[in-house]
Amino acid sequence: MRIPKINKAICPLALVAALNFVSIPSNAQNPERFFPARDLMTIGSYYYPEQWPRAQWERDLKKMAELGFEFTHFAEFAWAFIEPQEGKFDFKWLDEAVELAHKNGIKVIMCTSSPTPPAWLAQKHPEILMVNEEGRTMQHGSRQHISWSSPVYRQYVSKMVEAMAKHYANDKRIWGWQLDNEPSHYGQYDYSPAAQASFQKWLKNKYKSIDTLNKVWGTAFWSLVYDNFEQIRIPNQKELIAQPNPHAVLDYRRFSADEVTDFMGLQYNILRKYIPATQWITTNLMPDHAPVDPTRMTNLDFVTYTKYLVAGYDMGIGDQGFRKGSPTSIAFANDLFRSINGVTGVMELQPGQVNWGKFNPQTYPGVVRMWIWHAFAGGNKFVCNYRFRQPLTGGEQYHYGIIGPDGINPSTSGLEYIKVNKEMELLRKNYDAKAQMPADYKKRLTALLYSPDNRWETDNQPQTYQWNYLSH
Amino acid sequence: MRIPKINKAICPLALVAALNFVSIPSNAQNPERFFPARDLMTIGSYYYPEQWPRAQWERDLKKMAELGFEFTHFAEFAWAFIEPQEGKFDFKWLDEAVELAHKNGIKVIMCTSSPTPPAWLAQKHPEILMVNEEGRTMQHGSRQHISWSSPVYRQYVSKMVEAMAKHYANDKRIWGWQLDNEPSHYGQYDYSPAAQASFQKWLKNKYKSIDTLNKVWGTAFWSLVYDNFEQIRIPNQKELIAQPNPHAVLDYRRFSADEVTDFMGLQYNILRKYIPATQWITTNLMPDHAPVDPTRMTNLDFVTYTKYLVAGYDMGIGDQGFRKGSPTSIAFANDLFRSINGVTGVMELQPGQVNWGKFNPQTYPGVVRMWIWHAFAGGNKFVCNYRFRQPLTGGEQYHYGIIGPDGINPSTSGLEYIKVNKEMELLRKNYDAKAQMPADYKKRLTALLYSPDNRWETDNQPQTYQWNYLSH
Amino acid sequence: MRIPKINKAICPLALVAALNFVSIPSNAQNPERFFPARDLMTIGSYYYPEQWPRAQWERDLKKMAELGFEFTHFAEFAWAFIEPQEGKFDFKWLDEAVELAHKNGIKVIMCTSSPTPPAWLAQKHPEILMVNEEGRTMQHGSRQHISWSSPVYRQYVSKMVEAMAKHYANDKRIWGWQLDNEPSHYGQYDYSPAAQASFQKWLKNKYKSIDTLNKVWGTAFWSLVYDNFEQIRIPNQKELIAQPNPHAVLDYRRFSADEVTDFMGLQYNILRKYIPATQWITTNLMPDHAPVDPTRMTNLDFVTYTKYLVAGYDMGIGDQGFRKGSPTSIAFANDLFRSINGVTGVMELQPGQVNWGKFNPQTYPGVVRMWIWHAFAGGNKFVCNYRFRQPLTGGEQYHYGIIGPDGINPSTSGLEYIKVNKEMELLRKNYDAKAQMPADYKKRLTALLYSPDNRWETDNQPQTYQWNYLSH
Repeated sequence: MRIPKINKAICPLALVAALNFVSIPSNAQNPERFFPARDLMTIGSYYYPEQWPRAQWERDLKKMAELGFEFTHFAEFAWAFIEPQEGKFDFKWLDEAVELAHKNGIKVIMCTSSPTPPAWLAQKHPEILMVNEEGRTMQHGSRQHISWSSPVYRQYVSKMVEAMAKHYANDKRIWGWQLDNEPSHYGQYDYSPAAQASFQKWLKNKYKSIDTLNKVWGTAFWSLVYDNFEQIRIPNQKELIAQPNPHAVLDYRRFSADEVTDFMGLQYNILRKYIPATQWITTNLMPDHAPVDPTRMTNLDFVTYTKYLVAGYDMGIGDQGFRKGSPTSIAFANDLFRSINGVTGVMELQPGQVNWGKFNPQTYPGVVRMWIWHAFAGGNKFVCNYRFRQPLTGGEQYHYGIIGPDGINPSTSGLEYIKVNKEMELLRKNYDAKAQMPADYKKRLTALLYSPDNRWETDNQPQTYQWNYLSH
Repeated sequence: MRIPKINKAICPLALVAALNFVSIPSNAQNPERFFPARDLMTIGSYYYPEQWPRAQWERDLKKMAELGFEFTHFAEFAWAFIEPQEGKFDFKWLDEAVELAHKNGIKVIMCTSSPTPPAWLAQKHPEILMVNEEGRTMQHGSRQHISWSSPVYRQYVSKMVEAMAKHYANDKRIWGWQLDNEPSHYGQYDYSPAAQASFQKWLKNKYKSIDTLNKVWGTAFWSLVYDNFEQIRIPNQKELIAQPNPHAVLDYRRFSADEVTDFMGLQYNILRKYIPATQWITTNLMPDHAPVDPTRMTNLDFVTYTKYLVAGYDMGIGDQGFRKGSPTSIAFANDLFRSINGVTGVMELQPGQVNWGKFNPQTYPGVVRMWIWHAFAGGNKFVCNYRFRQPLTGGEQYHYGIIGPDGINPSTSGLEYIKVNKEMELLRKNYDAKAQMPADYKKRLTALLYSPDNRWETDNQPQTYQWNYLSH
Repeated sequence: MRIPKINKAICPLALVAALNFVSIPSNAQNPERFFPARDLMTIGSYYYPEQWPRAQWERDLKKMAELGFEFTHFAEFAWAFIEPQEGKFDFKWLDEAVELAHKNGIKVIMCTSSPTPPAWLAQKHPEILMVNEEGRTMQHGSRQHISWSSPVYRQYVSKMVEAMAKHYANDKRIWGWQLDNEPSHYGQYDYSPAAQASFQKWLKNKYKSIDTLNKVWGTAFWSLVYDNFEQIRIPNQKELIAQPNPHAVLDYRRFSADEVTDFMGLQYNILRKYIPATQWITTNLMPDHAPVDPTRMTNLDFVTYTKYLVAGYDMGIGDQGFRKGSPTSIAFANDLFRSINGVTGVMELQPGQVNWGKFNPQTYPGVVRMWIWHAFAGGNKFVCNYRFRQPLTGGEQYHYGIIGPDGINPSTSGLEYIKVNKEMELLRKNYDAKAQMPADYKKRLTALLYSPDNRWETDNQPQTYQWNYLSH
């Protein structure tokens, strides 16, 4: 792979303009505010101190530094350890981990662990649980089983985030913050009573009068006509004999995306009251997941993405393409996310074989390194590898890390990260702040228009199942 | 397409004899009672005044007449406009539409809008809602979400039908009546408490004693033996570990078909008390939908069918066959429905692209015209196009009409209807009441035996999934 | 097919060693205790007196004897006839059938009919019903709809088994006993409140403290951490947004297999108090069904299996292989079951076409005979054909028997059984108790290691959907 001469500005191969302009105030950034150009792209790795014996933390974080990683990522799933009992917060263990990272020259991305409430919370307040399309109430036992619309859940999240914010206010060892983790319900939608009530409120706010809604939704057909907002349910094909109203579906998609944006804003506002302006706040989204709209999330400092290219669903190009992933997948993510608030990073990048795919191939030799350089070419300010150490027990047991479950031996794909860490060092040495992009490069401009509204609408009322605009 | 010389009798290419003889009294008809032979086949189109600004009704109905349509079809989804509040009936808007049709020489098929109860009804009486195989209670938000077995629903329907009957009694502008619309639950079955109770009653009526049922159903196997009718539930694979009793399944299919037949009979009897003998009463069925048995519906004046040939499921013949539909599909419908009470019509015929198919191709140029002539050759007394004007908002947004959403420009396939309207005028001029079918034509007789019982049984206990009798 | 020279010991083509050693006391057998070597392999057939007019029993059982069958199999689905009302037991009809069998020289396998509780039981105690993965409560209407964990159900089963045991204690006409029938829930799992409570108890018993469970399950990831055993639910993908904890899944599989083993033990212990040592107690398992682990069931005298090779799912070998079934399927069953307690039999072997397959082909001429000899070569002490007479009504209506629904004419495949019955007679005449297996045969040893734990784990966390260890 030829590495292009380094320039201050990333070549604008594509420029994504989001068509929907939401009313949420934008926090559009000058990338320099958080990420000095001379750093090019910083590389880090996820670590879960709560998953490993305390005696091994120091060895692991030292090793992380030795292998060239510059930051780590803590606590996005640690609520049960941060608040083991209601109202009793425990940061001692996390302080220790932060200090061990710092001691080894590793910056910390600190996370709010809202996607994984402790068992006691769902037990005490089952009304926080999400209800899926099938009418099943989700349960404690994996993650993201809660309703973003639940006022009770939001109250508990607010307290937890405030406790973290207060504890780590002005902590120089913290580089930036991540809210939640991949908020998306992994493609599922929420039909809980809390979501039903919140959707009605959203509609009331949008249409003001039920007559306006009836007119815009065309409810005259099939006698759908509503007398008041309280009669409206979230459109759900599983409880309807024929097709739901298409405008109801589209509005529900908009509502859902607004709801998670609002939930992120809630956490952002709490944190911002306490942390210094030099610390950034982001979240990590999956670029392809329809329930969340990254272009709406201009209420954070910027948004980042997570990307897994080899998991049995992406056929890539050529004979062994399923072990390489599709280049358009990562390129689309780069172009879409860079355009939002003017800066982005890759919060999770696959380190080799995963455990949750339809089938879980070994990544093709060299592709992990290729992806990292693709991320760099795409303008990302950092890349974080998910995860440093392969787990020995629990979820994601067979998911590769940079090093194996023994904490010592790197995985084959982990070695590719380590190689890039060294190459990055070399590149930085050759960084020339005054270098300019060649003029004929700079002239090349392409625009991709991407409208979440249109995507939702074509998903809901496709001309045919044989054609997919997003894939195109 | 060669149009055969016109004869009084339609050539009996096929003669469908339904094997099941139900005890419901037959209303077998002389076709001449409602449809003079000299009219050959009358062509009309659906219109939804409630979906369009009142200011456009006159222009639309005038246009309909100009394009050669002779009747229109009102109100099958208009309950919310007919009874906007419980007990407060409003026919003013409908009177106005009827008069505008009449003014333009267009006859009206008036419909009872039982498939689409207003929002207030389901809100006040959730016990009217259907429960599907998955145990989900269906909801307001599309159509046909109610249980035909619900006594409460039947009471509200009776009141609405009586109000319509009284209002339009002896109205000469009304050509005939349609009950409900495509009663079928679109292939789903009802497992609501109301249906459970009604099924037990049906069984009690059929078998008299539980011992007889136990013997006929062979309940000795697997200790199914029932002590009383109240122990019996509708057989539902989703709540059984192994296969349900096959006789229970067959009886449930018979019950379901009887239930909807009875629901039609209920409406028929109310209407007949008020309307003149010259006005006919029918309903429109989908020929392939198993939950309803057209051969049972001899309690109406006659039954009509609805037919959509190009919607991504019918591969037709040849390379572009999916844009033409299968000729056997329309021929089977003609032969089956003509044999019931001796007269039939096509209540809905596709006007071009639909919106609800697996994929929604454009109809092949000329096939819409071909279908209309197929309907004529098949002995139909009328063909009604669904729908006159493509909707601008709401359900079926991308479903073609004769004219586009602008109300002015005909669709490509609408032009084919218009062409046939002119051809029909010409044919009528050449009609010879004394013409006889050639003798060797008349001799050609074929019988198809079709037994709904056998169909339900082979659906339930097929020899193999690789073979389907109905398709054959 | 070449029939090998008869030896006392069956050639140990394969030796299956189950890896999991459970603490349940083993009843390892000397095969001679129940099955004299000189009998080689005994062949019998299922019969349901309760399904046929009493007047035909004598003719049917006489015919069974005439065709060469040596034992029959009664009552596994007859609870409603044994206890038609709560606490009122009726053995008169069964006594009569047993006597008619005995009169014709036919031994009886007597069964406890726990898989098919009478209608009155589920009506009185709906809390005994199983709840499936979808959250649906199973209902009366087929079989195995009850929860093995329900204390109420176990109480009723205990009473019924005790009544049978008392009634048939020391009855010489009874050859042996079968508990339940194919206990398995046919691949479904139980999520009822009774099962939830029993799973928590099982976990408490295994892990003693919640801290130990948290450590072993790796609940630190995703904040799953439990505060107490009562917070734990059976892992169910349908109520979780992401993957369940893999250790929870594995423990639940172990629990389920233990639960049915315990349920069998409960019945075994009641029976053993009453019946003579010469009568054996077994159950019949399906070798491929994951919810049950035959290697755990060492608390019975031995376990037997049921086998259906031609039902549209087993492609077999060659062009018409789907009509022959796979030889590895029957060989695996032989090797696995023979290794458990040292003796086994085939409790059900397909007699020709079945009715419940995806498609239901006719068995290839000669294969039914081949399977019986495969069973013999695999060391089975008996083979029981399912079923003697094809039913006229009720479940399994189109399932072949040895004879047709008329009770007179044998089916094509029934004729193959009859042929083997005669061949077996011939073989017995040539039996030489002193014959030895050739030395080089005896030297040939192969071991197959089969671990249910590993199977459950690879089912739950497969590397890929394209590979299956069990099929391999």
